Amino acid sequence: MTFDLYTTLYIVAIIAEAMTAALLAGKLEMDLVGVFLLGWITALGGGSIRDVLLNHYPLSWVRHPSYPLITGFAALATIMVAQHMHRLRKLFLFLDAIGLVVFTVMGCQVAMTEHLSVVCVIISGMITGCMGGVLRDILCNDIPLLFRSELYGTVSVSTGVVFLCCSHIVDNRNIELLISMIFGISFRLLSIRYNWTLPRFSYRS
Amino acid sequence: MTFDLYTTLYIVAIIAEAMTAALLAGKLEMDLVGVFLLGWITALGGGSIRDVLLNHYPLSWVRHPSYPLITGFAALATIMVAQHMHRLRKLFLFLDAIGLVVFTVMGCQVAMTEHLSVVCVIISGMITGCMGGVLRDILCNDIPLLFRSELYGTVSVSTGVVFLCCSHIVDNRNIELLISMIFGISFRLLSIRYNWTLPRFSYRS
Amino acid sequence: MTFDLYTTLYIVAIIAEAMTAALLAGKLEMDLVGVFLLGWITALGGGSIRDVLLNHYPLSWVRHPSYPLITGFAALATIMVAQHMHRLRKLFLFLDAIGLVVFTVMGCQVAMTEHLSVVCVIISGMITGCMGGVLRDILCNDIPLLFRSELYGTVSVSTGVVFLCCSHIVDNRNIELLISMIFGISFRLLSIRYNWTLPRFSYRS
Repeated sequence: MTFDLYTTLYIVAIIAEAMTAALLAGKLEMDLVGVFLLGWITALGGGSIRDVLLNHYPLSWVRHPSYPLITGFAALATIMVAQHMHRLRKLFLFLDAIGLVVFTVMGCQVAMTEHLSVVCVIISGMITGCMGGVLRDILCNDIPLLFRSELYGTVSVSTGVVFLCCSHIVDNRNIELLISMIFGISFRLLSIRYNWTLPRFSYRS
Repeated sequence: MTFDLYTTLYIVAIIAEAMTAALLAGKLEMDLVGVFLLGWITALGGGSIRDVLLNHYPLSWVRHPSYPLITGFAALATIMVAQHMHRLRKLFLFLDAIGLVVFTVMGCQVAMTEHLSVVCVIISGMITGCMGGVLRDILCNDIPLLFRSELYGTVSVSTGVVFLCCSHIVDNRNIELLISMIFGISFRLLSIRYNWTLPRFSYRS
Repeated sequence: MTFDLYTTLYIVAIIAEAMTAALLAGKLEMDLVGVFLLGWITALGGGSIRDVLLNHYPLSWVRHPSYPLITGFAALATIMVAQHMHRLRKLFLFLDAIGLVVFTVMGCQVAMTEHLSVVCVIISGMITGCMGGVLRDILCNDIPLLFRSELYGTVSVSTGVVFLCCSHIVDNRNIELLISMIFGISFRLLSIRYNWTLPRFSYRS
């Protein structure tokens, strides 16, 4: 049951991430291979970077070869629904928030099963949650959004902290996940709704 | 004998990739270290990414330290022949096609010796064949060509499929390689000759 | 004693690298998370790439979770001293030169303890010394400085060669380090002082 809930949310998350990537690919007028690959790399890249850095082999898409196919075809399917996307914008932001939070929690869990320090658990969550988007922005030749605005990084780190606290207090994985998700998704959606941003550092030499 | 044919083709391939990278470095007016490094990273980067993702250590250039030197000096040598490059253009495209196809086949083989799934074999071939060029384009601050045009990715994936089919039918590594190469190189050269492209996905939000 | 000297210099080095990164983040008006992350990735990225390529786990920041915190907060602290930075410019260039040289020597040592070939030792030093800056420039959407100008790569490679020679002649780690540092830092500072550059390769197709 726990496994099913996690897996279901994970698949929702990778599909959502692949679809965001596809829309960006469409803005840059990439071809079909570009859409497919950008969707796949965005959705599975964060987890892959984490696994490589933590020496946690085999990678998820090597164990589950259906994941690259699911994400790639989700990206291609986005082409067909793209003209309706403005009407689906709220659903889309919600799915994207689920993606960020589920990825973060799963990243924290991987580091916790390896008995890493608290700092590494938080970093592992953040890498899993955010690095897919960083790869996407690098491949699209842009300064990663993570570094510039929106509270992506902040949401991911604080979701990681909430999850870590829960896992010391509660003894039920589903409840830990549920609390972290409610916190993280609310934080993310409120930050979009009210345009919360962090102060910027502006420097002229 | 098999070993020799593969090794020979592999060295032709890394030299060809290093030379394409050097020409791009020249367009961006990089200095000599830049030319050397871009050549080396382009030629050996795809295989290195594959080996890191598949936990297949040590990397080829750690086992064969001559490879970074060969590719680096091939990139520097390109500086001397650059003014004759327009006359060598066809030879060059041919070598580049060999590079793409040989890298793809070798990537498939690595995944097959690790008994990975069919999807991972194809992905491993594509990463080996294409990711060096993606690294090159990222380092040159450009959206990777793979995502935008030419049939690089398509040629690599279909060469992988052909190779995989051959390896289930034929029992001779040289013949498998030969068939895959004839297929892949023809596909690549025809796609250049007739300007074959995939449809693009264009999206305005 | 040896350990202390190395560790002290290493911490000076990662702080210096994080501060350079923070100044660049400020030029691009990144937010606080961006400053923190860019500082951390620049300072620890070169060593992480080396460890992943050489299969040398766990990574330094997994073993020492204080490092990401030190570098991140050093980057944030840079915001407070940024307006005095022009007066500290010389100190800053000196710290940056220490960073390059110390990273290079430590990268060479890692490869030497794994009994790799001379070429790999030099490459390992160069990756450790220079790749953090390459990641920084990629994330800032720029062609890496390493490929374009300054003698970063040349200083790193020649420091690696000096260190390798020393380690075959001298039998004392502190003296090896000292000689390499005097050589490398002098080379770096002289190259800045006298604007030494390598020839560029310029190519029009």
